[in-house]
Amino acid sequence: LTENPKYYKTYPEREVHEKFFRDVFEIILKDALFEGIQRDQPVVRFEQPHDLWKILNLKLGRDPAHNHDVLLDLVKDVIKYSVKTGHPYFINQLYSGIDPYGVAAEWVASALNGSVYTYEVAPVFTLMELEVFERMRNIIGFPKNQGDGLFCPGGSLANGYAISVARYKKRPEIKELGLSGVKPMIMFVSEDAHYSFKKLASFQGIGLKNVVGVKVDSRGKMNVTELDKEIQSSIDKGFDPFLVSATAGTTVLGAFDPIDEIAEVCKKYGLWLHVDGAWGGGALMSDTYRDLMKGIEKADSVTWNPHKLLCAPQQCSTFLLKDGTIATDAHATRATYLFQQDKFYEAQFDTGDKHIQCGRRADVLKFWLMWKAKGKDGFEAHIDHIFGLAKFCVEELRRRGPSFKLLLEDPECTNVVFWYIPPSLQDMNQSSPEFWDRIHKIAPKIKERMMRQGTMMCTYQPLRQYQNFFRVVIQSSEVNEKDVTYFLDEIEKCGKDL
Amino acid sequence: LTENPKYYKTYPEREVHEKFFRDVFEIILKDALFEGIQRDQPVVRFEQPHDLWKILNLKLGRDPAHNHDVLLDLVKDVIKYSVKTGHPYFINQLYSGIDPYGVAAEWVASALNGSVYTYEVAPVFTLMELEVFERMRNIIGFPKNQGDGLFCPGGSLANGYAISVARYKKRPEIKELGLSGVKPMIMFVSEDAHYSFKKLASFQGIGLKNVVGVKVDSRGKMNVTELDKEIQSSIDKGFDPFLVSATAGTTVLGAFDPIDEIAEVCKKYGLWLHVDGAWGGGALMSDTYRDLMKGIEKADSVTWNPHKLLCAPQQCSTFLLKDGTIATDAHATRATYLFQQDKFYEAQFDTGDKHIQCGRRADVLKFWLMWKAKGKDGFEAHIDHIFGLAKFCVEELRRRGPSFKLLLEDPECTNVVFWYIPPSLQDMNQSSPEFWDRIHKIAPKIKERMMRQGTMMCTYQPLRQYQNFFRVVIQSSEVNEKDVTYFLDEIEKCGKDL
Ligand SMILES: Cc1ncc(COP(=O)(O)O)c(C=O)c1O
Ligand SMILES: Cc1ncc(COP(=O)(O)O)c(C=O)c1O
Repeated sequence: LTENPKYYKTYPEREVHEKFFRDVFEIILKDALFEGIQRDQPVVRFEQPHDLWKILNLKLGRDPAHNHDVLLDLVKDVIKYSVKTGHPYFINQLYSGIDPYGVAAEWVASALNGSVYTYEVAPVFTLMELEVFERMRNIIGFPKNQGDGLFCPGGSLANGYAISVARYKKRPEIKELGLSGVKPMIMFVSEDAHYSFKKLASFQGIGLKNVVGVKVDSRGKMNVTELDKEIQSSIDKGFDPFLVSATAGTTVLGAFDPIDEIAEVCKKYGLWLHVDGAWGGGALMSDTYRDLMKGIEKADSVTWNPHKLLCAPQQCSTFLLKDGTIATDAHATRATYLFQQDKFYEAQFDTGDKHIQCGRRADVLKFWLMWKAKGKDGFEAHIDHIFGLAKFCVEELRRRGPSFKLLLEDPECTNVVFWYIPPSLQDMNQSSPEFWDRIHKIAPKIKERMMRQGTMMCTYQPLRQYQNFFRVVIQSSEVNEKDVTYFLDEIEKCGKDL
Repeated sequence: LTENPKYYKTYPEREVHEKFFRDVFEIILKDALFEGIQRDQPVVRFEQPHDLWKILNLKLGRDPAHNHDVLLDLVKDVIKYSVKTGHPYFINQLYSGIDPYGVAAEWVASALNGSVYTYEVAPVFTLMELEVFERMRNIIGFPKNQGDGLFCPGGSLANGYAISVARYKKRPEIKELGLSGVKPMIMFVSEDAHYSFKKLASFQGIGLKNVVGVKVDSRGKMNVTELDKEIQSSIDKGFDPFLVSATAGTTVLGAFDPIDEIAEVCKKYGLWLHVDGAWGGGALMSDTYRDLMKGIEKADSVTWNPHKLLCAPQQCSTFLLKDGTIATDAHATRATYLFQQDKFYEAQFDTGDKHIQCGRRADVLKFWLMWKAKGKDGFEAHIDHIFGLAKFCVEELRRRGPSFKLLLEDPECTNVVFWYIPPSLQDMNQSSPEFWDRIHKIAPKIKERMMRQGTMMCTYQPLRQYQNFFRVVIQSSEVNEKDVTYFLDEIEKCGKDL
């Protein structure tokens, strides 16, 4: 690059960049998509932050790179030391696998570098979003050819949109006047709901303390009697309730709140019903499992992240609405430099003003291309496969007797949660605090070992009264029964001497 | 695909997907990155929404695609009918060009499908962010080895973060308690500030009306005497001022608010000073132009979008802070399932909890690789090139006499704003309302014609008292003097008979 007088130009040229593009592409294919995520390869090459800093040449300065080879070596190192989230043994988060059609579509979207706010700059993506949203709403069971949808930079912000439109529905004047001076507004989620509700409610001026975490039952599902009581009691105390969010697939336990019953309560109090299906929403694609969300068509809005259960590349998060205009009403500011009204096409196709983002990536393309490739049938087969495997995992855990203890006997989603009990603790009294103190320290140790060896990545966490337990999440349809057996073997291997 | 029993799997396999990947890659190279954005190719193949719907096969259904060829044809059509934002004649928005290193890095990031919230899943990207933020803060002039930074899904949300931390600084109890019951909080931007302040302030419960748009001078720069008056008057009326945002490069006119003077006012009233350099921030890379932001080191926080003036692919937006802990203090909710405190590495490297997002794409990689490739010197050369061209454009407009009228005689950024006056209007009295009524209708007509022919895309807009005018934005360093001449010729060609 130091020899090329135009090295800084923001435009690709065949003579200068073709070979570089091809070389990067070969590295991606080999190291990130094919050989690099085979089962015999490490999921991670873990290094402590200070060591990794020394290994990688991350420093930035004044000078350009000498040539493309320098950059290619950097790319190789970035891939080498990055966690292989597409590896079948990466079951650490609510995203994993790497969908071939999704990733190819991301490459196209990056090369087109579009921003989806006006039809004039994003004609294809605008229409594509309309189609995707209509299909998703149909699957939810919302009325045909109505409603709305927004792609969001994550399910957290999708839940933030739910807070915003529900608040607007109840008190539209807040858009203009703000919350100062109004009665404290209050919203209800289950105590196992995703933390984004607290985070966004705080960001949006509602306040952490006005997010009520309604008690859950032993399966992690919202207790609807408690919900009713909490709402009534908040009214009695002078609060202004405006929103209930039912979680369809909680983050840790994978529980589905009873939407039908919650809908009744919302009706009774005139509250907005949101369903956070960021995680579990994908199960709507399966005729076998969609009943986990029975009643979802009664919701006013739904968060559904195709990047979770359906394995679209990150980010791909949607916020779906029964009402066709409220998102625009709540958010539009009608900037005249972008949303001109004297255009030569119908201004309704400029969909940007209902978002809180201005520039916005074309996250739709990856999901659309995946859908084109596999059809709803393909998504269904994927869901049926991974839900089946989760059941297999539960059976396998039971079969392994005293070494494993299920936290939930009958998980509803593909989260399987359990403790590993090493031989040294198997004879202890399981109702003693000492036992649980010891158990609490087991999972972090095992996690450390599996990460240092790079053999697998699986998360652990405490929850409410429960001490650290493992959460296996089955999400990639590459995973098979042998892999599930491997997960449990590996946990045992890393923990049996503890 | 219909013949492959495992067609739905979310995992790439050489035998099944290699050819597909390669075919998609060839299409991208040819249609999106090389031949497709040559000057003799259309910027857009415009079709009205209903016609485009008929041309494209967007519908989604139950069935998988028969084979990869079907998908490849779809990809070709998506590219064909998408706007070529990398084309040198696309000067319609505050993003354009397509940086070769940026786009290659995006491909890598997509294939790694990472989420940057914990070090354990994103070791490389976590350290990379730290390095990029430190360098950016150094360039701003913030103290070394201190401060903070966040990648945001757009400059709008970066500005939202400014609102959030400034509010937290003034009234930390709002995080917990919400805004209800507190004095109305009020913030100050210029009347030409980006609409995201209004949008986010409303979303965050501050209310549209509590965003004061301070008058600007004839060059579009905030009038600081007015600012002082507005703040004083808001205090007198019982409001609680908390934030002033100076814009460094306004969206339409490219004006730079006088940061030094605004900093004095902020000091006087004890207010948070934010600088929205989403658009102009890139000029900090140039020793020649960085003085446009004189005093920026006095800011408490800065929005800076490398995806705008520096041409990183979308999205690449940063929020930079002088204070190292306030973003965490303001936003953290300490979810125990993700930010476990009993990890085997230092928990400070889990940087996710300061964000309002949970999952978050690795937007850092593209900017980092661009920086590695070009060095700060390369960014400087890029900035100097495009700022120079903007000056050339102004001279050229002056030279063309009565056909063009500059709105700003001396634009500060690379926005060049002007009216085209067709021969039929050149003899009219320019102080008559009729003249301006006629002028107002000229730009939309010209825009329609250039889009229908696909020869160029350049935006127009009204602003305050000004009727529809053109805004040429020079941003891609591929653009040269001949191109600038072409832009003006093309406007004349499309408008001379009006
Ligand atoms: C139930 C639930 N809702 C919302 C979210 C937030 O989604 P995102 O990470 O896309 O912000 C998550 C993330 O795990 C989740 O599990
Ligand atoms: C001055 C300014 N600030 C903020 C933004 C918002 O940036 P984004 O589109 O990334 O949300 C823009 C967008 O054009 C802008 O011009």
